[in-house]
Amino acid sequence: MQSSWILAIRSVRPPRRLAPTLIFRATCLSVPASRRCFHISARPQDLNPAIEDMAPKAPKFEIKTPKGTRDWSGSDMVLREKIFNTITNVFKRHGGVTIDTPVFELKEILAGKYGEDSKLIYDLADQGGELCSLRYDLTVPFARYLAMNKDVSQIKRYHIAKVYRRDQPAVKKGRMREFYQCDFDIAGLYDPMIPDAEIIRIINEVFEGLGWQGKYTIKLNSRKILDGIFQVCGVPEASIRPISSAVDKLDKMPWEDVRKEMVEEKGLAPEVADKIGKYVVLKGKRELLEQLQKDEELAANASMQQGFADLDLLFTYLDAFNAGHSVSFDLSLARGLDYYTGVIYEVVTEGSAPKVSAASAEASAEKSKKKKGKAGEDEDRSDDPTVGIGSVAAGGRYDNLVGMFSGKTQVPCVGISFGIDRIFSIMRANQAKKERKNEVDVFVMAFGGGKDFTGLLKERSEIAARLWDANIKAEFLYKVKPKLQNQFKAAEANGVPFALILGEDELAQGKIKIKEMGLPEDHPLKEGELIDLKNLAKEVQVRIDRKKQLDAIVEQAEGLRVVGGIKGEDVKVEQQAKEGEVTPRMGEEVKAEN
Amino acid sequence: MQSSWILAIRSVRPPRRLAPTLIFRATCLSVPASRRCFHISARPQDLNPAIEDMAPKAPKFEIKTPKGTRDWSGSDMVLREKIFNTITNVFKRHGGVTIDTPVFELKEILAGKYGEDSKLIYDLADQGGELCSLRYDLTVPFARYLAMNKDVSQIKRYHIAKVYRRDQPAVKKGRMREFYQCDFDIAGLYDPMIPDAEIIRIINEVFEGLGWQGKYTIKLNSRKILDGIFQVCGVPEASIRPISSAVDKLDKMPWEDVRKEMVEEKGLAPEVADKIGKYVVLKGKRELLEQLQKDEELAANASMQQGFADLDLLFTYLDAFNAGHSVSFDLSLARGLDYYTGVIYEVVTEGSAPKVSAASAEASAEKSKKKKGKAGEDEDRSDDPTVGIGSVAAGGRYDNLVGMFSGKTQVPCVGISFGIDRIFSIMRANQAKKERKNEVDVFVMAFGGGKDFTGLLKERSEIAARLWDANIKAEFLYKVKPKLQNQFKAAEANGVPFALILGEDELAQGKIKIKEMGLPEDHPLKEGELIDLKNLAKEVQVRIDRKKQLDAIVEQAEGLRVVGGIKGEDVKVEQQAKEGEVTPRMGEEVKAEN
Repeated sequence: MQSSWILAIRSVRPPRRLAPTLIFRATCLSVPASRRCFHISARPQDLNPAIEDMAPKAPKFEIKTPKGTRDWSGSDMVLREKIFNTITNVFKRHGGVTIDTPVFELKEILAGKYGEDSKLIYDLADQGGELCSLRYDLTVPFARYLAMNKDVSQIKRYHIAKVYRRDQPAVKKGRMREFYQCDFDIAGLYDPMIPDAEIIRIINEVFEGLGWQGKYTIKLNSRKILDGIFQVCGVPEASIRPISSAVDKLDKMPWEDVRKEMVEEKGLAPEVADKIGKYVVLKGKRELLEQLQKDEELAANASMQQGFADLDLLFTYLDAFNAGHSVSFDLSLARGLDYYTGVIYEVVTEGSAPKVSAASAEASAEKSKKKKGKAGEDEDRSDDPTVGIGSVAAGGRYDNLVGMFSGKTQVPCVGISFGIDRIFSIMRANQAKKERKNEVDVFVMAFGGGKDFTGLLKERSEIAARLWDANIKAEFLYKVKPKLQNQFKAAEANGVPFALILGEDELAQGKIKIKEMGLPEDHPLKEGELIDLKNLAKEVQVRIDRKKQLDAIVEQAEGLRVVGGIKGEDVKVEQQAKEGEVTPRMGEEVKAEN
Repeated sequence: MQSSWILAIRSVRPPRRLAPTLIFRATCLSVPASRRCFHISARPQDLNPAIEDMAPKAPKFEIKTPKGTRDWSGSDMVLREKIFNTITNVFKRHGGVTIDTPVFELKEILAGKYGEDSKLIYDLADQGGELCSLRYDLTVPFARYLAMNKDVSQIKRYHIAKVYRRDQPAVKKGRMREFYQCDFDIAGLYDPMIPDAEIIRIINEVFEGLGWQGKYTIKLNSRKILDGIFQVCGVPEASIRPISSAVDKLDKMPWEDVRKEMVEEKGLAPEVADKIGKYVVLKGKRELLEQLQKDEELAANASMQQGFADLDLLFTYLDAFNAGHSVSFDLSLARGLDYYTGVIYEVVTEGSAPKVSAASAEASAEKSKKKKGKAGEDEDRSDDPTVGIGSVAAGGRYDNLVGMFSGKTQVPCVGISFGIDRIFSIMRANQAKKERKNEVDVFVMAFGGGKDFTGLLKERSEIAARLWDANIKAEFLYKVKPKLQNQFKAAEANGVPFALILGEDELAQGKIKIKEMGLPEDHPLKEGELIDLKNLAKEVQVRIDRKKQLDAIVEQAEGLRVVGGIKGEDVKVEQQAKEGEVTPRMGEEVKAEN
C-alpha cells in the first residue's frame, strides 16, 4: 500500500461529558511534504459559538417507549434470536415457507373476527384515504392472503412477526401490547387429521429444541366433542359459545366459580351446569376417549361422533409420529376465539396458571378490579399474582375463516401460534449465564508505547480488512494511539476469543502474535504464538473453528444442566468436555482441514 | 410400533369447490376387532344444514392490502431473505449487534425531526392513553434508545425493520408506504473518521456480497464542505438549509431548474447562485479535494477547513481498508434531512435517476401534477418515467440527534441505511431463475396400486419422523392412498431433490429406495438405489450433502453470470462445474464423513 498516511487527533474529550477544556494535537507520519500539511480541526460547536447554541436542551416530555412496548437489545436480543432460529429450523424441516404481510390491514378485514376482544384493536388515525388497523394476530391476515391468492390452495406457511393488542400489560411476565407471534399453519384440503397430527409433532420439536423436555403439556380437545357435550347436557344452541367461554376459564378459576358464571350470569339451568361439570373436569390420554365412547348418550350425538372419529385417528397418527407423549386430552380446554371448528391445542408450562389458591385469587381479583378503577387503563400487572404467564402456544383447526373473505372458496386450515415473549420470559429467568452481545472472533491490537509509538492504525486497518475479506468477524479500537490495556479491556468486555497483536519487531519479520483470551496463568500458550502474516486468514480460521467445536460441546453440556435433565449424566458430559478438551492444542501445526 | 392403525377417508371433495355430491368411504386395517370400529364422518356443514347456513357469503368490501403495502411470499420472500442474510452477515463481521424497537413511538419523539416530510408520518388513532405514531425511519428510534440507555455510550448496532411513510407509492419500483430499512450505525466518541471510513467499507462489502461489483457508486460529500461553499458564495445563514435542499435535487433536474428554484422561489441573488453553480457540478476522487484545497477563498473558511481535514483523513483510511474504489466525491450531494453534521453518503446504481431528458421530465412533472389533482392522493407512480428508483442506500454523520432527546449527553453517530425494497426490485428484475419456495430435501412416497394397496401412511409417517429426528427436511403427501404419479408431481412442483420410495417388498427386506430427482434418462442411477433402513438418516444425509456441495458450485457460477462479471471466466467456472461434477457419484459406498 503506497498511499500517504495522516493521523490527526482532534478535540479529544472524555465520552459523554462536554468538558470545557479541549486538547488539540496533530501528528503526521510518512507524508510527502509536497502533498500534505497538518490538519487541526474540531467539531463545529468547538469553533462556532452560534452552533454551540444549538446544543441539546432538555426536551419537555418523558423519553420512553409507549406503554406495553419495549426495546430489545444486548443479551436479551441474542437469546430471542436463538429462540427464533430454533423455531424457524423446525418449521423449515417440515417444509414450511414464510410469508410477510403488512403490519396494518384495512379496518374491515379485522372487523367481526375477534368477538369481544375487538375493542383491543389499535386503529390508525384517519389522515385521508383508507381506514386501517394494526394486526391483532397473524391468522386473520393469513386467511385474507389465502382469499386473495386463489392459486395458493395448499401451503404450509410460517410467519414470525409482531402483533398489537391494547390490553393491560404485564411486562415482566411477557404480556405486552406489542409482542411477537410465531405461527405455523397448514392450509388446504387433505385426508383428515394428518396435518392436525403433524402440528402436534411440530409443537414437540419446538419445545424439545428449546430444551424444555418434560416441562410442557400439550392440552388437546375438539370443538366437536365440546359442542357434543353441551348438546347432550341440554345447553340451548344460542348459549353454546358463551358457555364454552366460561369453561375456558377453568385454568384460572375453580369449577364452583365457573358454575356460578354459567348459572347466574349466563342463565343456564343449574342441573345442566352440574351435568357439564361432570365432563369438563376430565383429563387423560387415549383411554379417556375410549371411556367417553362407551357413554351411550354421548355416542348417539352426531357432533360427538365426528369428534370421536377425529381424535381416534389423531391418536393413531401421533403414535406413528412418535409425538403423543406430551399430549393431555383435556375436556376443560375451550379456547376463546370463535373461528375454531375442530381440534384445539394449548401448550402450558409451570407458571402458565396463577400461583394462588382459589380464595385468594378471588380476593385479588376484587382488589384488582378496584385498583383498575383508580389507576386508569395503563397499569402493569406483572406483580399481580392473579395473572399467570398464560399458555405459551395455542392453536387449532379453523375451516371456515378463509371463506369469510373469499365469499365462495373455503380453504380448511390448522395451525399453531407460539407466544415468543412468554417463552422468552421463562427462558430468561432460567438462564445460567448471559449471552455474548456480538459475535466478533478477533480483536486486532497494537503493542507498543512511549514517544515513538505510532499506534499502527494503518496496519490494524489493513489486517482487519484482510480478515473481513476472509469472512472473519473482527474489530479494532477506533483510536489512533491506543493503550494495550484498553484494547484488552475492550476485547474482554465482550468475550472476544482471540487477540491479534501487532508489534513493530514482529511485523519486520513478517509475523503477528495470536493469543487466545482467558487462558489460565500457567497455560503454555498464555503468551500467545507467532504466526506468518502470509497465512493470516487461514491460521486464524483454524483456531476459531477449533474453539467453536469445543465451545459447542461445553454449551450442550451446560444446556442440559440448565434445563434440568438427569443430573448425573449432564455433569458427566460437561466434565468430559472440560477435562478432555478445554485446553485447545494450539501448539499443533495447522493442518489442511478441508 | 404396536398401535392400531385406522384409515378413514371422509367427504372427499375436489379442492376449492363445494360440490353437492359427497363421497363417503372408510377403510380399516389391522385393527383388533375388540377395540375399533369403522368411523364414517364428515365436516359439520355436511351433516347440519344450520351450520351450512353459516357458509361464506361474499363480503361487501374489496379484499386487498392497504395502498402502498404488499404481501411477500413465495420466491420473492426467498430472494428477500437471501438479501437480508447477506447484509446481516456483513454487519456481524464488523461486530454489529442488533436492537429491536417498537413499531410505534410517542408522537412527540418523532415531532420536529423530519422537516417538511413530517406530514408523511402515520399517526395512531386517539383511543385513550398516549398519542403514538408509526416510525418514519430507524434512526430517530435509535437516537431515542441511546438517550434512554445512558450506559450504552458506544455501540455498533444494526436494525432491519419496517418503516412507514404516507408517500405516493410506486410499487413496481420498490417505493412503498410500508418498506424495510436496514441500518448500520456506529455510535460513540472515537478518534475522528475511523468509523466513517468503516461505514464505507461496509457499504462495499454489502453490494459486493450481493454481486453488484462495478454496478454501484458511493457518492460522498460533507455538510461542512457544502456549508463552507455556501458561506463563501455569500448565501445568508438562514437560507443555507433551503438552498442545500435545492442542490439535493441535482440528481433529478438540470442545473438551470435548480438555479431557477434558488433565485425565483428561494430569493437568492442570481450572482450567488451562479457562484454556487460552479462548485456543485464538480465530481471526482481525492484529486478534487486537493483542487478545492488550493482555492484560497475556500481555504480561508473555517467550515471548509474542517471538511477538508475530515475528507483528507477519510480518503487515507479508505486506502487502508481497500474501500475507496467505488467512491465518488460529489459536491452536488446534499441529503434532505436536517440532522446530518458531517460526511454524507448516497449509493446509486443504474435506474436510480429518472430515464428521461430534462425537457420531457418537466412536461411529465406538469402532467403528473395535474393528474394528481384529479386522481387524489393514492396513485401509484410505478410507470411514471420522472420517478427513478432513487438511491439504494444513504446515510451520514449526525452528531447532535441523540442530544435532542437526552438533553445533556451527546452521542456522535455515523451510519448507513440500505433500501431493501429497491435493492430487491433491481435484483428481482435481473434474476435468471426463480428461487425454490421451500427447502425440503426429501419427499417420502409410497409405491403400489391396485385393490390391496394400503398407501403405507403409517410407514411414511414413521420414516418422516425419523428424518425429522435427524434434522432432515422432509415431507409426504397428506393422503391415505396416494398415487405414485401425484407424489412425484408434488415433489417436482417444488424441486425437492430426493425421493424416498417405500414398497412392501423392499420393506420386507429392510430396504428403501432413494432416487435423485431430475436425472437424465440414461443415467445409471435414474431408477434409484436401495439403502438399508437401519442407516436411513446417515445414507440420506450423505447424499444431501454431496448434492448441496455440487449445487453451490453451479450456483456460484450462475451468480457470476447473472451479475455480468468477466464473461470468459464465468463460463469457464460454470463449465467446469457442469462437466466435472454434475453427475453425483451415487453409486459409491457411503463413507463416514464426520
